[in-house]
Amino acid sequence: STMLCWLNRLHGALSAPTGRIAHLRPSSLRRRLALSSQRRIPEFSSFVARTNTCGELRSSHLGQEVTLCGWIQYRRQNVFLVLRDSHGLIQVVIPQDESAASVKKILCEAPVESVVRVSGTVISRPPGQENPKMPTGEIEIKVKTAELLNSCKKLPFEIKDFVKKTEALRLQYRYLDLRSFQMQYNLRLRSQMVMKMREYLCNLHGFVDVETPTLFKRTPGGAKEFVIPSREPGKFYCLPQSPQQFKQLLMVGGLDRYFQVARCYRDEGSRPDRQPEFTQIDIEMSFVDQTGIQSLIEGLLQYSWPSDKDPVVVPFPSMTFAEALASYGTDKPDTRFGMKIVDISNVFRNTEVGFLQDALSKPQGTVKAMCISEGAKYLKRKDIESIRKFAADHFNQEVLPIFLKANRNWNSPVAKSIMEEQRSGLTRLMEIQEDDVVLLTAGEHKKACSVLGKLRLECADLLEARGLVLRDPALFSFLWVVDFPLFLPKEEKPEKLESAHHPFTAPHPSDVQLLYSEPEKVRSQHYDLVLNGNEIGGGSIRIHDAELQRYILAELLKVTSSSNLFALDYILICYLCILLPGLDRLICLVTGAPSIRDVIAFPKSFRGHDLMSNAPDSLPPEELKPYHIQVSWPADSEAKKSSLNQPYCPES
Amino acid sequence: STMLCWLNRLHGALSAPTGRIAHLRPSSLRRRLALSSQRRIPEFSSFVARTNTCGELRSSHLGQEVTLCGWIQYRRQNVFLVLRDSHGLIQVVIPQDESAASVKKILCEAPVESVVRVSGTVISRPPGQENPKMPTGEIEIKVKTAELLNSCKKLPFEIKDFVKKTEALRLQYRYLDLRSFQMQYNLRLRSQMVMKMREYLCNLHGFVDVETPTLFKRTPGGAKEFVIPSREPGKFYCLPQSPQQFKQLLMVGGLDRYFQVARCYRDEGSRPDRQPEFTQIDIEMSFVDQTGIQSLIEGLLQYSWPSDKDPVVVPFPSMTFAEALASYGTDKPDTRFGMKIVDISNVFRNTEVGFLQDALSKPQGTVKAMCISEGAKYLKRKDIESIRKFAADHFNQEVLPIFLKANRNWNSPVAKSIMEEQRSGLTRLMEIQEDDVVLLTAGEHKKACSVLGKLRLECADLLEARGLVLRDPALFSFLWVVDFPLFLPKEEKPEKLESAHHPFTAPHPSDVQLLYSEPEKVRSQHYDLVLNGNEIGGGSIRIHDAELQRYILAELLKVTSSSNLFALDYILICYLCILLPGLDRLICLVTGAPSIRDVIAFPKSFRGHDLMSNAPDSLPPEELKPYHIQVSWPADSEAKKSSLNQPYCPES
Repeated sequence: STMLCWLNRLHGALSAPTGRIAHLRPSSLRRRLALSSQRRIPEFSSFVARTNTCGELRSSHLGQEVTLCGWIQYRRQNVFLVLRDSHGLIQVVIPQDESAASVKKILCEAPVESVVRVSGTVISRPPGQENPKMPTGEIEIKVKTAELLNSCKKLPFEIKDFVKKTEALRLQYRYLDLRSFQMQYNLRLRSQMVMKMREYLCNLHGFVDVETPTLFKRTPGGAKEFVIPSREPGKFYCLPQSPQQFKQLLMVGGLDRYFQVARCYRDEGSRPDRQPEFTQIDIEMSFVDQTGIQSLIEGLLQYSWPSDKDPVVVPFPSMTFAEALASYGTDKPDTRFGMKIVDISNVFRNTEVGFLQDALSKPQGTVKAMCISEGAKYLKRKDIESIRKFAADHFNQEVLPIFLKANRNWNSPVAKSIMEEQRSGLTRLMEIQEDDVVLLTAGEHKKACSVLGKLRLECADLLEARGLVLRDPALFSFLWVVDFPLFLPKEEKPEKLESAHHPFTAPHPSDVQLLYSEPEKVRSQHYDLVLNGNEIGGGSIRIHDAELQRYILAELLKVTSSSNLFALDYILICYLCILLPGLDRLICLVTGAPSIRDVIAFPKSFRGHDLMSNAPDSLPPEELKPYHIQVSWPADSEAKKSSLNQPYCPES
Repeated sequence: STMLCWLNRLHGALSAPTGRIAHLRPSSLRRRLALSSQRRIPEFSSFVARTNTCGELRSSHLGQEVTLCGWIQYRRQNVFLVLRDSHGLIQVVIPQDESAASVKKILCEAPVESVVRVSGTVISRPPGQENPKMPTGEIEIKVKTAELLNSCKKLPFEIKDFVKKTEALRLQYRYLDLRSFQMQYNLRLRSQMVMKMREYLCNLHGFVDVETPTLFKRTPGGAKEFVIPSREPGKFYCLPQSPQQFKQLLMVGGLDRYFQVARCYRDEGSRPDRQPEFTQIDIEMSFVDQTGIQSLIEGLLQYSWPSDKDPVVVPFPSMTFAEALASYGTDKPDTRFGMKIVDISNVFRNTEVGFLQDALSKPQGTVKAMCISEGAKYLKRKDIESIRKFAADHFNQEVLPIFLKANRNWNSPVAKSIMEEQRSGLTRLMEIQEDDVVLLTAGEHKKACSVLGKLRLECADLLEARGLVLRDPALFSFLWVVDFPLFLPKEEKPEKLESAHHPFTAPHPSDVQLLYSEPEKVRSQHYDLVLNGNEIGGGSIRIHDAELQRYILAELLKVTSSSNLFALDYILICYLCILLPGLDRLICLVTGAPSIRDVIAFPKSFRGHDLMSNAPDSLPPEELKPYHIQVSWPADSEAKKSSLNQPYCPES
């Protein structure tokens, strides 16, 4: 069952009775520690009136007198019950004899999900009644005393069925949803992984953990920042999107190396399915270069990777942005599978096919193709059609499916003629096999690659739905993507430039001269870390030359406001910023959870609501008065009418 | 000098090259680890283009080729300079010969506070030129190459003189102020102390670190909570004062033991000198009792206490609230010195002195006294007068100074007659010596004690100003204060009750029956942790009986709103909350810093302003529009006029 599966994972990864701390030293000492340590580390039952957790007892504990606390998971025929806590399950035998009648009463009358404390002896289960799927399955507790700690009212749903409930219900009753092994596993893994990151940074490499303010002010371009009225009329704090400015100042202040598990805030407004508050591992170092920082991050992930997964292999492979775009159509390639994009422009240099000619004649015009291995075997006609439609509807891009067997070029004389014309060229270049499907498209380089990149992922989804395993869920493919452009044309005004990442990113040392002649060609010292096609981190070397910084801001980016650059004069030393912007996402990937909400204790819903506690909520005008603000109600506001009608409960 | 003093502290406490990790295991293994470890832990120069920090080189490094990065602290006659980083100072010899002219140029022309990288050899200083006060004072660097990393503009003040600058200037230029050894020491100590707390909780005792939301909603009675407008008209988030509700729900959710280094928010409004955001170590455990929790906290502080201070002795002494009030006049006694309050009511049962008779005849009427040892020797007449005035002005309480020698009862026939009347009784009860001063007051018990409690601290300040050391700054006196009352009369309506701490606190098991007859006499299971007269933590056992909780809320406290009690039905198990509300305060006490602002990287000023970045700041109406709010300007507002005149810099 799912529950037992989670339980095993929980035990495997988390409840090792010794040696969890052993990561900190060489393996020979680790063994010595494990042997010599009498204590269990960590000690889960310290300071409390129990001797063990429900999940840890084994045959090795036979005969011991134990006291356990837990929730009644279920009860069978008043003969035994299963007790649960966050560490596991254990079978408890309900005493049947007269002298224990009061104990039996307690254990039989308490509703399921009540909390009890039991004391008794660890005994073997009768032969044939062991449960091999349960870590405690060889033993059970012969109860002597029992105490009802709390009785449970009727629950809105059964804990073990939580997986079947809608997410809205789970979020509304999050405090019950948290009891599931999955949520317990996710939150504990998160805690341990972050703890190991702290050990690595703080204990092994001398980083300083510094807390930076969240009551800050608006940053230029900070359209997505929540505002907080203050008691001074018209004056507002703002919640920061990241500790960006403060960490630079910590380097100016000589802290040398800083990190923070930082709470960041972004008001996504019209982009739902984003958490308005999220967590970053924020790192900044002085006197470091890109190689150094990559080593740091590789070491950090290697050190903190959970022990129930294959260890992380370092160094991570590296790919330029140009290569990532050309071969995978994205700046965050999922390298767990092939199906790379191939440029076949040369094969069609002299084509007579109209739309290919047309595309090739334009600037940056290309013809691209992608080979879906065994596509004809696994994909149906409707799948191919949906792919074409997807490309046409979303990107206005025509994509032709081409088969080695001409008779499979369903209803497509164009595809047929393309294949005939360039069969040998294509086959050789792309190593096409008999059941493969080739998707072909033509257009400007970036666009053609991007479209095929998205189709690549669509195809992967389709193939996996048809039973082909392309992306091994147990595989974690890391990748550095480097050599991004420093600038990009503004969307609305392509003749103007904006920073690809942020205006403080340093140019590639070899490209500095291009800043004065062809700035659009300058590569940056920004790098992203990609995991299984998700961007989980990134960073950049910062400009430390004040004149260069001024030139870029004033001459290239035309930024006039300098209100937040107050420290620019006071030495921007060589330093680097790294952040793992997706700590939530990283944990999500590591646990295999379907959504980042499953790795956050109390997440917001789709629209930024807390369904459990009903935030955001109305406030009566009296409570806004000290902040000198009032609500500007839209003209047709139902919300206003209902808000004014709500009874106000004064503070007690 | 102060700088070297700080430097020594920094090195002593922080830069031990090995063994920092050793806290995690028994001492025999610790020694084995220290001996066998080839690496320096922590490694401060990993990943960067330097070999060492400026503070770590010693005679043992003689002959080594090193590369260092740092700030030019000062330069003497173009002959040598002192290089500084966050780990210390080192002397660098500027090469004088022709072949090194370019190196000399770099090192001599760079302004003080520029950042340079130097490479060279570690050599001995010439005999007689060693500096015994400098950890690197026996050696210096013979420079081969140098590189200017960044040149420094003129600074607003010299780094080494920071201590003399006003705090406002320090806050405005915080990024320079951070360079001082004091701020470096404070921030690093904070980082390490919190890290050790995490190790203790997470690694040794299986606590789970869980992040709770800060975009929450208003809590009942939450007058001090900042509001955050959302994109839904009239709907607001609120910043929480603590993770209070979420941590209870984590226990309901079966997490068993949780902690968080939590950011908390409080809009103090008219109470300045409080940080609007501050940090708590927030802890919650299931199935624990008061003894268990006290052991946990004692262990936590013992484990995390800095190694450059005397170790913490556990268990901490314990005192009831009643005793604390009676003997020290406060619920947070500073037990580093005596001068306790003594109840002398019985000595004056039959007094003829009018005001004493009067006081004793009223309910809870008492006569109290406090003996200032050697007070007549150290305190002047004006000191005594200022004490009396303080009590009269602030508390409307008459305090009489009484001397063993009648002739010292300056101008006070009352004092004179009191002494004569009850000389032997007082002398015996209070063990008065010849030069002591006794402060006597009469009135209702609580008030009389409180006034003398405040005077006790005033006297301590005065005596220390006169040269008597009462409160040893190296002494850390911990104390548990227990058995608080569960309820207090409301200030405005004394016939009504309010919770002394919060409505979820459990009553003392022996006092449960009193809840139904004399609730004002019920003791609570709340306890505070006091350090040197400062409350640094506290916690309580919570009510886990839903019916009892309902009775207290509805019948005793008359709380009608139940909007935040949604989980009440779903099992309140036995659990306990602890928080160290003053992490900032604790670090402040440990470092001996004069203010909590000195242990926060970027604190707010007296009025909640960020002087460095100018927060809170004005926002133009366009930026408030998405949040459906507008400013309600006061009628006479200058701020409005100036805000409307400010140029608006649109996002770039």
